[in-house]
Amino acid sequence: MPMQHFDLKSLNEMASRYRVQLINSLSGFKSANLIGTCNAQEQTNLAIFSSVFHLGASPALVGFIMRPDSVSRHTLENIKQTEQYTINQVSEDFWRKAHQTSAHYNSDESEFEQVGLTPEFIDGVTAPFVKESRIKYALNVKEITPIKLNNTLLVIGEITNVICESSVIKSDGYLDIEAANTVAISGLDSYHSSTRLSRISYAKPHKEALDIPLNGSIE
Amino acid sequence: MPMQHFDLKSLNEMASRYRVQLINSLSGFKSANLIGTCNAQEQTNLAIFSSVFHLGASPALVGFIMRPDSVSRHTLENIKQTEQYTINQVSEDFWRKAHQTSAHYNSDESEFEQVGLTPEFIDGVTAPFVKESRIKYALNVKEITPIKLNNTLLVIGEITNVICESSVIKSDGYLDIEAANTVAISGLDSYHSSTRLSRISYAKPHKEALDIPLNGSIE
Repeated sequence: MPMQHFDLKSLNEMASRYRVQLINSLSGFKSANLIGTCNAQEQTNLAIFSSVFHLGASPALVGFIMRPDSVSRHTLENIKQTEQYTINQVSEDFWRKAHQTSAHYNSDESEFEQVGLTPEFIDGVTAPFVKESRIKYALNVKEITPIKLNNTLLVIGEITNVICESSVIKSDGYLDIEAANTVAISGLDSYHSSTRLSRISYAKPHKEALDIPLNGSIE
Repeated sequence: MPMQHFDLKSLNEMASRYRVQLINSLSGFKSANLIGTCNAQEQTNLAIFSSVFHLGASPALVGFIMRPDSVSRHTLENIKQTEQYTINQVSEDFWRKAHQTSAHYNSDESEFEQVGLTPEFIDGVTAPFVKESRIKYALNVKEITPIKLNNTLLVIGEITNVICESSVIKSDGYLDIEAANTVAISGLDSYHSSTRLSRISYAKPHKEALDIPLNGSIE
């Protein structure tokens, strides 16, 4: 298979938009999530992020990366004001609406209304959930860490509430996000559905890991 | 659709293994990558990570999360010693071998040999690439930031070399990672292939974003 090698010189000399596409493709599949917030005046905001990642289960921490000067700056301002936000998995049913939240709306326009998604509230959480999302959770912000290397921010929150379709919960706690039609992103603009290869058991040296049933562990 | 709501009390009282599966499922699809390193004595190491994420294109930065006390501690030690590492996308052709690198091998056993993958070297990079990987790159470590909330580390590297199959590079710089059969991970142990829904144009207010051809932008 013919291979292409970009060295440091060719990466540095690359046209900016080409470089953005290439570098954005390198990390592999990205998660697709809508972050819901509101400000102190209860104006709701919704923004798509491809940088949400698992950080730890105990405490239950999730991180995401944002640029303070980007279209999603209202997300940051609202999180600072209210200290709460929701993360809502994007599914095949509404991925185009989710993508549309990345347009530059004015601060008095709610993306919910503009793209046609429905805000949903629960007691104790001021931030809006996305009603259409099948797996979603609320967080309290714990830490906002500047990454000086490129002036981005790592926002870390602790999960306080999880809401998901009962049918996707497997007996060992695994959520079948594929059955919830959750999508993945690659690069800047490509959306993908998934097909499970298998669940597979915890790896041990000098033993072959085994396929495990969708509904839980063989151990 | 019946929904399940886990509040903070039920999350806190959850059995530990159930909680780990549940919380790990929440962030959405995760990237699947092998990180290749070697120590000062040129002993190679290879470890699978599901926490690699895009951080920025200019400078070209990629981050990943690790636990200093985990099976992947040799990855960290080697990065500290040599300041270099490679990230190699995991494809359908070898995802089981990639998973097997997570077994606790001794430090004198190379995962390459143990799981049956092939180390590959280029001039100027001491860390090994995975020959079987179709999209891979070398990095110099730039920053290792402790995340005190759960004693993990955020490791950030700058990309110095990119190697990929020529056929997956599209005219606008996007890499068709689906054509490279790159897999995604959900939860702790589920592997998935993908099917493209579409590439879609940059969103603008009050206009519908358009599907764009796989090979580049309509703009």
